[in-house]
Amino acid sequence: MKTIKIESKHNPRIKALKKLKEKKHRMKERVFLVEGFRLLEEAFRAKIPVESLFYVAEKETDFQRYIAPHLQEEEVFHVSQEVLKELSDTVHPQGIVGVLSMDHWPQSSSATKDPELYLYLDGLQDPGNLGTIIRSAHAAGCGGILFGKHTVDPYGEKVLRSAMGSLFHVPIYQDGDAHLPQFMAEGYPLAVTSLNATQSIYEEDLRGKLILVIGNEGKGVSKDMEEKATTLLKIPMPGEAESLNAAVATSIILFERVRQKRL
Amino acid sequence: MKTIKIESKHNPRIKALKKLKEKKHRMKERVFLVEGFRLLEEAFRAKIPVESLFYVAEKETDFQRYIAPHLQEEEVFHVSQEVLKELSDTVHPQGIVGVLSMDHWPQSSSATKDPELYLYLDGLQDPGNLGTIIRSAHAAGCGGILFGKHTVDPYGEKVLRSAMGSLFHVPIYQDGDAHLPQFMAEGYPLAVTSLNATQSIYEEDLRGKLILVIGNEGKGVSKDMEEKATTLLKIPMPGEAESLNAAVATSIILFERVRQKRL
Repeated sequence: MKTIKIESKHNPRIKALKKLKEKKHRMKERVFLVEGFRLLEEAFRAKIPVESLFYVAEKETDFQRYIAPHLQEEEVFHVSQEVLKELSDTVHPQGIVGVLSMDHWPQSSSATKDPELYLYLDGLQDPGNLGTIIRSAHAAGCGGILFGKHTVDPYGEKVLRSAMGSLFHVPIYQDGDAHLPQFMAEGYPLAVTSLNATQSIYEEDLRGKLILVIGNEGKGVSKDMEEKATTLLKIPMPGEAESLNAAVATSIILFERVRQKRL
Repeated sequence: MKTIKIESKHNPRIKALKKLKEKKHRMKERVFLVEGFRLLEEAFRAKIPVESLFYVAEKETDFQRYIAPHLQEEEVFHVSQEVLKELSDTVHPQGIVGVLSMDHWPQSSSATKDPELYLYLDGLQDPGNLGTIIRSAHAAGCGGILFGKHTVDPYGEKVLRSAMGSLFHVPIYQDGDAHLPQFMAEGYPLAVTSLNATQSIYEEDLRGKLILVIGNEGKGVSKDMEEKATTLLKIPMPGEAESLNAAVATSIILFERVRQKRL
């Protein structure tokens, strides 16, 4: 492992990497930034390709403990605190940032515990909700997540933080709309939550092939997806709340499937 | 309805109300600030005592439509944009702020749809998680939420925003620890999620009296509550995620109870 030093935040490489905080640059370069020892260790374990690593001298012990055992061909840089701050998005930078490739996706859904279960995100906007959904999808063994257009980008810092490493374990289909016809040709039903549903999630058989559609936090699912829907679902609410948080509703349905499949 | 004008942010009343953004002042005065027409209308509907209202002239139409029909003894103030900004916590103030009393709590749990179901929050810290839990508790018809010490305050702006009005419908027991012995004397079991649980939430009978204990996001439930627990629960996770988001785990258990009670 050859370590290169970067002391100045005006270094052209650092200036280029800083741009990855914006979605359009991430999409162009097909890489994204991941901060923190715990998340990066999780990425290595999940065999996500790490291109380069930037860490401060003060964190040498953590680096040797959590990162060094996994290293293969990655470029490793020693950077100043000032440089690290440029790449970091947190108030208290954790001392290490990695550049990861997004091109391992979609990994094979067959590696997941429930390869016939998918989510389709139809305009979900809140990064915290998305991170929470990814975490629940991982826990439920979900085969993959299809991203519809106008849906928040999964590679932003807030999503990564609230997904807590689960992003590395759930196959991501960034161009979900391009994949949808194939799934439908394979007989996947599209399930949408709707106030017009006659069956509750407890009555509906949720065990087979399934794509669960999650709409926008305020507006719900789009007209287009509502027309495509083959299954309408509702979560019974004894209390008179208007609705549930989007990540909560998704998780309740995912785990109702977990329950039904255990019977 | 007599309307009073306040133009200057140095007005002593405004300066005093501004302090309500801090928990210690809210606790001392037993009132809290609520922003926005939708939330305030919901508060009126839920019969929460509103002490005073502050709105800008530009929002006269909204005021007449959403608020005026509910008015009784409340003090109403016309304020400048500058004054409203002092009381608001959002980047784009919604033009109205109300001062509400917290002393209607606990309302009678018997008004809820599931008066034998309670939550006890044991050190939960994230305001967004708390708001989401309150929203799910409302939807499940929960009889009340007991707040243990070191738990985030329910009257902060972020909680109110993510609870979306549900705070006004779920009885809140701010001094949860003072109420716990009474519940336990009445035979309420304390259910704690634990990796050591032998029964999953799908096997356990969750239909009777129940207090579900929710721990801190990072550290889980306290030693003290773990020792007091009478029921250990686990949510089966086919995927290998370490854990679920606290609000998600809570909601999955709440709605497993909803399912069991429907059978």
